[in-house]
Amino acid sequence: MLKEIFAPEAVAVIGASPEPARLGHTVLKNIVENGFRGKIYPIHPKAKQVLGIDTYSSVLDVPGPIDLAVIIIPAQFVLDVVDQCGKKGIRGLVVISAGFKEVGGEGKELERRLIETINSYGMRMVGPNCLGIIDTISSLNASFAALMPDAGNIAFMSQSGAMCTAILDWSKPKGIGFSRFVSLGNKGDVDEVALLEAWNDDAHSKVILAYLEGISNGPGFIEAARKVTKNTPVVAIKSGTTTAGTRAASSHTGALAGSESAYEAAFSQSGILRARTMSELFDLAQLFAYQPLVKGNRVAIVTNAGGPGIIATDAVERSGLKMATLSEATVATLRAGLPAEANVFNPIDVIGDARSDRYKVALDAAMADPSVDAAVVLLTPQAQSDLIETVDVIVDAAKRFAKPVVTSFMGDYSLGPSLERLNANKIPNYQFPERAIQSLAAMHRHYLWTQRPEPQYRRFEVDQDRVAKLFADIRSSGRVELGEIEAREVMEAYGMRLPKSRLARTPDEAAEIAAEFGFPVVMKISSPDILHKSDIGGVKVGIADASGARDAFELIEYRARKYNREARIWGMLVQQMVPKGREILVGVSRDPQFGPLVGVGMGGIYVEVLKDIAFRLAPISEYEAEEQLRSIRTYPLLRGVRGERRADTDAIIETVLRVSQLVTDFPEIVEMDINPLVAYNRGEGAIVLDARIILK
Amino acid sequence: MLKEIFAPEAVAVIGASPEPARLGHTVLKNIVENGFRGKIYPIHPKAKQVLGIDTYSSVLDVPGPIDLAVIIIPAQFVLDVVDQCGKKGIRGLVVISAGFKEVGGEGKELERRLIETINSYGMRMVGPNCLGIIDTISSLNASFAALMPDAGNIAFMSQSGAMCTAILDWSKPKGIGFSRFVSLGNKGDVDEVALLEAWNDDAHSKVILAYLEGISNGPGFIEAARKVTKNTPVVAIKSGTTTAGTRAASSHTGALAGSESAYEAAFSQSGILRARTMSELFDLAQLFAYQPLVKGNRVAIVTNAGGPGIIATDAVERSGLKMATLSEATVATLRAGLPAEANVFNPIDVIGDARSDRYKVALDAAMADPSVDAAVVLLTPQAQSDLIETVDVIVDAAKRFAKPVVTSFMGDYSLGPSLERLNANKIPNYQFPERAIQSLAAMHRHYLWTQRPEPQYRRFEVDQDRVAKLFADIRSSGRVELGEIEAREVMEAYGMRLPKSRLARTPDEAAEIAAEFGFPVVMKISSPDILHKSDIGGVKVGIADASGARDAFELIEYRARKYNREARIWGMLVQQMVPKGREILVGVSRDPQFGPLVGVGMGGIYVEVLKDIAFRLAPISEYEAEEQLRSIRTYPLLRGVRGERRADTDAIIETVLRVSQLVTDFPEIVEMDINPLVAYNRGEGAIVLDARIILK
Repeated sequence: MLKEIFAPEAVAVIGASPEPARLGHTVLKNIVENGFRGKIYPIHPKAKQVLGIDTYSSVLDVPGPIDLAVIIIPAQFVLDVVDQCGKKGIRGLVVISAGFKEVGGEGKELERRLIETINSYGMRMVGPNCLGIIDTISSLNASFAALMPDAGNIAFMSQSGAMCTAILDWSKPKGIGFSRFVSLGNKGDVDEVALLEAWNDDAHSKVILAYLEGISNGPGFIEAARKVTKNTPVVAIKSGTTTAGTRAASSHTGALAGSESAYEAAFSQSGILRARTMSELFDLAQLFAYQPLVKGNRVAIVTNAGGPGIIATDAVERSGLKMATLSEATVATLRAGLPAEANVFNPIDVIGDARSDRYKVALDAAMADPSVDAAVVLLTPQAQSDLIETVDVIVDAAKRFAKPVVTSFMGDYSLGPSLERLNANKIPNYQFPERAIQSLAAMHRHYLWTQRPEPQYRRFEVDQDRVAKLFADIRSSGRVELGEIEAREVMEAYGMRLPKSRLARTPDEAAEIAAEFGFPVVMKISSPDILHKSDIGGVKVGIADASGARDAFELIEYRARKYNREARIWGMLVQQMVPKGREILVGVSRDPQFGPLVGVGMGGIYVEVLKDIAFRLAPISEYEAEEQLRSIRTYPLLRGVRGERRADTDAIIETVLRVSQLVTDFPEIVEMDINPLVAYNRGEGAIVLDARIILK
Repeated sequence: MLKEIFAPEAVAVIGASPEPARLGHTVLKNIVENGFRGKIYPIHPKAKQVLGIDTYSSVLDVPGPIDLAVIIIPAQFVLDVVDQCGKKGIRGLVVISAGFKEVGGEGKELERRLIETINSYGMRMVGPNCLGIIDTISSLNASFAALMPDAGNIAFMSQSGAMCTAILDWSKPKGIGFSRFVSLGNKGDVDEVALLEAWNDDAHSKVILAYLEGISNGPGFIEAARKVTKNTPVVAIKSGTTTAGTRAASSHTGALAGSESAYEAAFSQSGILRARTMSELFDLAQLFAYQPLVKGNRVAIVTNAGGPGIIATDAVERSGLKMATLSEATVATLRAGLPAEANVFNPIDVIGDARSDRYKVALDAAMADPSVDAAVVLLTPQAQSDLIETVDVIVDAAKRFAKPVVTSFMGDYSLGPSLERLNANKIPNYQFPERAIQSLAAMHRHYLWTQRPEPQYRRFEVDQDRVAKLFADIRSSGRVELGEIEAREVMEAYGMRLPKSRLARTPDEAAEIAAEFGFPVVMKISSPDILHKSDIGGVKVGIADASGARDAFELIEYRARKYNREARIWGMLVQQMVPKGREILVGVSRDPQFGPLVGVGMGGIYVEVLKDIAFRLAPISEYEAEEQLRSIRTYPLLRGVRGERRADTDAIIETVLRVSQLVTDFPEIVEMDINPLVAYNRGEGAIVLDARIILK
C-alpha cells in the first residue's frame, strides 16, 4: 500500500527554503501546518532553521530514520540527493522538481538515470515533475497546493498537475473529502498501475478516481484494475487524442480500430466506469463515497412537483434503470398517509405544499418496499417547504435502510443550509434530477460488474509448433504478409473449419481437383504479388464443370499477367464452394499500449459502412466474448429476424476465442482479418472462407 | 407582443388580501415592492386598504382604466370577476387560481366557460393554475414567487410552476438575468405558441427558453418557432413520456415512429435547439444572452494548463466544431510574445505561471486571426494567476472583436470575485471545458439555421380528385385499409412510377397479361380478406412462361382457399418484374399533436432491425427532405460503396416530397408504407413496388 509514501513516520523536505516565495518553503509549510504527526526534517545547505524547525544540510546528517523524502531542488542536483537518500535507507520519494522527461533531451537522460538510481536502492518514487501528494489519513500534505482538502474517502490520482489544483479549488467549498490525492507527474516510477495496486486494500478509500491522459503499461493496468474494481469502484476520465489516427492500417480491422477502441475495451473488461466529463467524475465519486452500493435497478422517486418527477422518470427510462412498481402495501400506506391529491404511484408526488412529514411517509414507505432498490428525493423549494427537517427525514431513512438515497434539491438561493446538511450527512445532492439518475445508473453497472463470475479463459488444443515454424519460415524469407495458403495453415492449426482447398498448377490439375471436391468450386489466383485478388478479377465462383475449371485457370492467369507481368504465380487455389450463410468479420489490430484487440462484427457493409464492430482485448474470456458479440447493433440479425433461424453464435464466439488464443500465443501478429467467417444456423458451425495475417 | 400582460400601465390584483399568509397578499406585495411604476388597484370585498393602498371591492368601482387583472381567488368565483373585468374593458388577465382543468370534472367545465368568457371579450389570459408572470422590463412581478429575478435578456416560459420556483432560486445567486418569466399553468389561452409570437419582435430578449411537457397545437408551434428562431434562438427542454407507446400501429412506419420522433422532427424543422438537461438549457442561455452569434466553426483555445487543453480539444472534435489552424502571422505574434516553453499552436498553452499579460498576448492574437470564429479561455488557478486582471483582459478582447469568447475558470474556492466579474461583464463561464465547447457547438448549429434558405415546398401536378373519389368510395364501403390495386391507383394519381400490373380473373387471362408485359412476371393474390399475402404463399415471383402463369394462378388460389375458405378472391394481380435495385421504405405515421410524420430509410433489416429511419413532419421542403435522407446511417450505401454507382437519391427525395404532398392533401391518411420503393442508379429513377394505405 506504498506505506513509505502515504504513511511515513518521518519526512525529509529536501529544498525546504526559508524564503516564503520558494516552492520548497510552501511544501514544508503545507506539511507543518496541516497537522502531520510524524517527524519533519527540513534539508537546506545553509539555513539553520526553517519555520522554527531545525534544519540539516543533508539527509545523511539526520540522526533518526527517515521514511519519505520530498524533493524540491533544481533538476541537476536531484540525482545526488537521491543517492544520499538511498544511502540513508529512505524508502519513499516524492520528486516535485521539474526539468526531466517533459523537457526532452538531457532531461530525458536525467530521468532515466534517476529511475536507475531509485531502482538500485529499491525505493519507490512519485514524480518527478508533479504537484506532490496529499494524504488526509496521516494528515500529510507533501505538495505545493494552495489548499488542503477535507478528509474523506475518495482517492484521486491525476496525470495533470493543473487538474489537481483545479479539483482542489473546486471541491473545497463543496466539502468533498479525499483520502489520498496524488499528482502523478512524469510517472517515473509510481504510475496508475502502482496506485491501483496500492489502493486495492485501502480501508480509507471507498472510491478511486483517475484523470488519465495515457497509459503506458496496458496489460498491467487491466490486471490491476480488474482486481481492485471487485472491491472498490474506479471512475476514470481519459482524455487525449492519441496519434493512432496516423497509424498505417492495412487490414479492415486495423482501419476500424480507432484510438478509442482499446481504451473502451480495457475499461469495459476491467470494470472501470468511464466518466465523460469532470462533472460526471465527481457525480459518481460522491455517490460511491457516501452511499451503499445499489443492489438492483428499481428506482423510487419522491417529489413535491410534477415537472421534475417527469424529468426524473424520463431519465430513469433512458439510463437503463427501471421505475419500481410499488407493492400494494406501499401504495396503501401512501394512500393513508398522504393527501388525496398526492400521486401514490411511482413517481410519488407529495404535492407542492408538502412539509417534511409527507416526505417521511413517502420515503419510509418507498425504502421499506422490497421492490425498491434506490430512492431519489426531488424537492423544489416552495413557501411551505421545511428544508432542514426534510433533510433530517432523508438522513434518517438513509440510516435505517441499506439502500442508496440521493437527492436533487433544485435551486440555490434558499437552499444553502439544507445542502450543507445533506453533504455533512453524506447524502449526495445533484443540481438537477438527471444527474442523480445517471449516477445511480453507473453505480448499478458497477454492481453488475462485481457480480460477474471470474473470467474463464478457454484453452483449445492447437498445433502451436506448426504455426511457430511457419512464421519463422516466412520471416526468414523477408515477408510480413502471409499468403492465402499460409494463412489457411494457421487457421487449420488453430482448429478452425475451412473449405476443402488445394493448389492447382495447371488447368488440368484444377479440373481434377474440382472433380474430386465436387462441383461447383471457387478458383482464386495464388501469388505473393497480388494481394487484392478480387480487384483484378482473380477470383471466379460457381465453376460448374471440368471445362469451366480449365477456362477459369487460363482466364485468371491472363488477367494476373495483365495486371503485373512480373508477378510470381504459384497457381490457382481450387476451393470447395460452401453454402451461403451469414458473413462475419473476426479481426485483430494490435494497440501499442494494450496489445491485441480482437474485433467482431457482421461482414461487408455492416462493418465497413456502419462501423458496427465490437472490440475486446485478448486474452478474451468466454463471458466477454459473448458480451462482445451481443453488443454489436446487428446482433438481432444473428439471433434471427423474419422467421430466419438463429445463427450459430456459439461457433462465432468459439472463433473469437481461438483467435484470441492465437494472437496471445503469437505477439508477432500485428493485424489479421478473417473475412468472411461464414456462420450457419445454430448447431451447424461456421467456416473460415478467407483470412489475412500480417506479422511484425 | 401581449402588451396588456407584460407592459400594463394599471394593474388590478383581485383577491389582494390583507392577511400576509394569503397568496393574494404575496402577489400584491411582489408587485408593490419590486418597483412596478404603473397604477396598482387591490381588489378585496371588505378591506379598505392593503399594504397602505386604497382597495376597491370590484374592478367596476375603480375610477381609471385597468390593463391587467391578476386573479387569486377561489375558482368558483373567478368567472364572475372575469366577467366584470370584461365589462371594465380590461384586456389582460393572469389567473393564478387553481381548481380548473387540472382537477378534472367540474373544474374542466369551469375552465371551458372561463375561456368562453375571455374570448367573448377578446381578452388574453395567462393561466389558470399558474405561478404568475414576471417582467423585469416593466418591473412587474405579478406572481407569488419568493424571489424577483435580476433583469437580463433571457425570456423564459415553463409549463411547470415548480420548475419556475426552482429556476428562480437557482439563478438568483448566479446573477442570471431574465427579461420575461412566465408560468404557463393550464394554458387556457396564452400557450407556448402565443408567447413565441409575442416574443418574436422583443428587443429585450436575446434568447427564449422553454420548459415544455406537451404541445397541443403542433403545426402552430412549428410555424411560430420557425419565424422567431430566424431572429432569436429558442432553447427548449421537452420532458414527459407520452402515451404513444400504446398507440396501435399497423404499418411498419407506425411501429417505428416512437413518441419522440415527432418532437425531434418538429424541433429540427423549426430551428429549436433541444437541451437534454436543465444545466444544458442554462449553459446555452448564458452564451446566447451574453455573446454575439458565432459565424463559423473554428475555435481557438487559450489555456494555462495542458490537461484541460486536451479535454477541450477532444470536446471540440467530438462536437462537430473544429480546432482553428492559426495563421502564420498569429503564430509569429505568439512566438514573440510568449515564453519559449509556451505552445504557440492551437490549443495555445501560456503555461502554468502565466499572468494576465500572457493571456492578453494569446487571446488578442487569436481573436484578431480571421481563421478563428470563437475563443475559449481556460484557467486553472495557480499561485501566479492574477485572476481579476485576466478577467479584464478577456472582457477587453470580447469588446473589441465581434466573436464569442467563453471561459472555463476551473475551480471555485479561489475564484469567487473573478467569476462575479466575468458574469457582470457578460462572459459566460463554465465549470468544466466540455460544457463551454458544447454550448459553442449548439450556437454554431443555430447560426447554420439562420443561414438556411426559406423552405421551398415543391408542388407536383397530381390528380387529387381521383384520390378523393377513391377514398370516398372506400369509406362508403366501410373499409379503412386500401387494397393493393387501390393503393396503386393513389400512387399513380400522385405521379409515382409503378411496374405494369393488371388483374387476371382466370389462369388463361393471367397467361395472356404476362405475355403482353413480357416474362418474367410476378403474381399475387388479390383479396380484401388476405392482407399479408406472402405469409400464406400468395406471391410467386420469377414466373417464366405462360404455363408457369397458369400454374401459379391455381396454386395461389388453392393456398388462399386453404387459408380462408370464405375469402373473397378477386383474382391474381399480374405484375411486370422489375430489375433489382436498392430497396427503400417511405412511410407515414400520423402524430396526434403534429400531424403526418414522413419517414424514409433503407428497407428490410435496415429499418426493421437497425431502426435506421429519419422522420420529418409534412409538409416537407426540398432542403429538409435532402437533409432527412442524408441523416440516415445507411446513407453511404445510397451514395455507393465498393465501386457501386450512386443511387438515384433525387428520385427518393421526390418520392418523399410527393408523399408529403399526398398526406397534406388527405388528412384522412393515418398510416402508409411504400415498401419497397426500388431505387436505381442515378438518373434511372425509382419504382414503387408495394404500398399500403390506412385511412382514419
